[in-house]
Amino acid sequence: MKILVINCGSSSLKYQLIETLGEHPLASGLVERIGESTGKVSHQNRSDAAGGQGIVYEKPISDHRSAMHEAVGQLTAPGTGVISGPGEIAAVGHRVVHGGEYFHKPAQVDHMVLEAIEKTIPLAPLHNPANLMGIKVAQELFPHAPQVAVFDTAFHQTIPAYAYHYALPWSYYEQMGVRRYGFHGTSHQYVAREATARLGRPPSEVNLITAHLGSGASICAIEKGVSVDTSMGMTPLGGLIMGTRGGNLDPGVVMTIAERSGMSLKEIDAVLQKESGLKGICGMNDLRDIHAAADKGDARAQLALDMFVYRCRQYIGAYFFQLGRVDALVFTAGVGENDAAIREACCKGMATVGLTLDPQRNRYPDPRRGEISTAGSPIKAYVIPTNEELEIARQTLGVVNAEVA
Amino acid sequence: MKILVINCGSSSLKYQLIETLGEHPLASGLVERIGESTGKVSHQNRSDAAGGQGIVYEKPISDHRSAMHEAVGQLTAPGTGVISGPGEIAAVGHRVVHGGEYFHKPAQVDHMVLEAIEKTIPLAPLHNPANLMGIKVAQELFPHAPQVAVFDTAFHQTIPAYAYHYALPWSYYEQMGVRRYGFHGTSHQYVAREATARLGRPPSEVNLITAHLGSGASICAIEKGVSVDTSMGMTPLGGLIMGTRGGNLDPGVVMTIAERSGMSLKEIDAVLQKESGLKGICGMNDLRDIHAAADKGDARAQLALDMFVYRCRQYIGAYFFQLGRVDALVFTAGVGENDAAIREACCKGMATVGLTLDPQRNRYPDPRRGEISTAGSPIKAYVIPTNEELEIARQTLGVVNAEVA
Repeated sequence: MKILVINCGSSSLKYQLIETLGEHPLASGLVERIGESTGKVSHQNRSDAAGGQGIVYEKPISDHRSAMHEAVGQLTAPGTGVISGPGEIAAVGHRVVHGGEYFHKPAQVDHMVLEAIEKTIPLAPLHNPANLMGIKVAQELFPHAPQVAVFDTAFHQTIPAYAYHYALPWSYYEQMGVRRYGFHGTSHQYVAREATARLGRPPSEVNLITAHLGSGASICAIEKGVSVDTSMGMTPLGGLIMGTRGGNLDPGVVMTIAERSGMSLKEIDAVLQKESGLKGICGMNDLRDIHAAADKGDARAQLALDMFVYRCRQYIGAYFFQLGRVDALVFTAGVGENDAAIREACCKGMATVGLTLDPQRNRYPDPRRGEISTAGSPIKAYVIPTNEELEIARQTLGVVNAEVA
Repeated sequence: MKILVINCGSSSLKYQLIETLGEHPLASGLVERIGESTGKVSHQNRSDAAGGQGIVYEKPISDHRSAMHEAVGQLTAPGTGVISGPGEIAAVGHRVVHGGEYFHKPAQVDHMVLEAIEKTIPLAPLHNPANLMGIKVAQELFPHAPQVAVFDTAFHQTIPAYAYHYALPWSYYEQMGVRRYGFHGTSHQYVAREATARLGRPPSEVNLITAHLGSGASICAIEKGVSVDTSMGMTPLGGLIMGTRGGNLDPGVVMTIAERSGMSLKEIDAVLQKESGLKGICGMNDLRDIHAAADKGDARAQLALDMFVYRCRQYIGAYFFQLGRVDALVFTAGVGENDAAIREACCKGMATVGLTLDPQRNRYPDPRRGEISTAGSPIKAYVIPTNEELEIARQTLGVVNAEVA
């Protein structure tokens, strides 16, 4: 079955066409700068030689509808297209950032689902409107294909109340939905599924800590296959130190900055979004640059690395303690998949709790197994490349099959 | 040697006279409502029968100088006073809330010290001015006694940079002193000293986690006798869930509340100070009331208890993991000393890391030893009543002796 996976941003549209039989991608692409004077389309067929550039061109893309037309045009182009027409697409899976408290699993889109996504806009004012737009355009273009919404927050809806509530006036929860939602749920769910398979045990018997470390980052505690806590909170500003975001704070710090700097809340928000995190400490937000600078003796770059790792270890430690028994620690996303030094620092001294990293395996992880702990380590560590598109396709397939059954 | 310990608040003055030989208090008192139409003085001699009410009276107390006169009047009153005149007071130890980055130990007051405390006022705008006032009045009244400032923050000045920095623009640290300082240092230091003595090992070999749980609360990681991290941050709003304060937050939550409620920052600050924490969740801020309500089936009271414990366990877990080896976990302050159920919940499942609580000992701790772990538990747990006044007297004595030597 061919499933089209759509991820709409406010001015971009990412897509991937996946053949679920064998789970391989057929083609993928990105339409950028939607609504700007010149848009850009990049499309690649996976049957092309690895590393091939595919098709890239620029043209004005007025809106998401035009963007989707470009995507379909490339997918069905005579000669180069991987399908003969939109009718070959059996279902469309949409990434939706925020499902609020409405969705703890993927949902086939109907008017109730659209309404709930709409109601959740105040919690994700930038993302949910773009996601909704993507769904509506896809409904027009693929009228016979079921549309399925897959939520970044859904996986974390199993977090217990004592871990998702903030100690704030209760009315803030009731009236403004102030609580922990968590994000990166699709990624945590994907790598948890993969790790569970590698452990060869049923999900209901597996406890994991999954570390999604990219330019955005979160760590998730998974007990018996379900998320029981995650570092991100109500918004993507919380939890870990990230590229340009600083994670959790003493709220008195926000008050102090506001009072003493005279900045408006909007200005402070922009600083917390774009000028904090690793960038705030050392001026760089890419860990590769920061490693290079630290190696040359840049003290602030070294401090940024130490802070990043220390914060990761605080969550890993807290989750180890809460879970009691952990089967594996999983690293994923840009930093998690590629930065052996960060992984090593995160796991330092963990032999006392039962996890011993194999330095050689950690430096050159086996792409198939991804195991980076020693053969005798009671707790396993894995590097597992995340694949949110595949997870969305799997969940879409699951919904479609359930509807049929 | 007789040392007078002074703790000045903005409208109050607490004092205790301590005989350092044998370390017993001679008298203590509290002058309240300074500057209001009617002030109140409470004074008690420790030689009185235990539970005696001592002397209590009301009268207008115009300022801190008058308050100190009342205290000295009671201490030296013919017939009831425990000393014959102010000349018997060998030294005065002052609690000072904030020492910024200037003080990592107590300091004998001179003009440089006064200047540094003054410079630190922006970090503790309510407390440091009152503390300074107390020092100045005491200098007038006891001109021959050395004055020693003992800082709440000093013990935490050993925290490494990667743990005290926030991932915010570096200029905020340089220009506004935005960093973790930590508080309750005198209390953490006192109970750490006591626990170390009970363990019978030199401080340089002892790793501890100390939990100061009162209406304000913080947990401290102590490695080889020195503080290496603590849950409170730049301000007393950070870290754990407290009576009316909610601890660390996703800063996006503050932004959301500001945007959606239309409250000013001052109003939000008041909510974060006085309407959050346990009170925000269940309407009560005293854990005794909350236990009683939870026992009667109040679900929000139970949630508040679970949240309080969960947050404590996150820090305990994180610090266990960071320290690698822990010799003892110490509970102190109102809740830590008296709430067996909270202690039990905090330690639940800790047998896997080497700490087993003895339920009977935990319910009725031996007041002398305070050990609440089982005899065979590799990691000890203690209940140790805090005594900040005695710690201030000890540190004052240490400074005075060092000056003499």
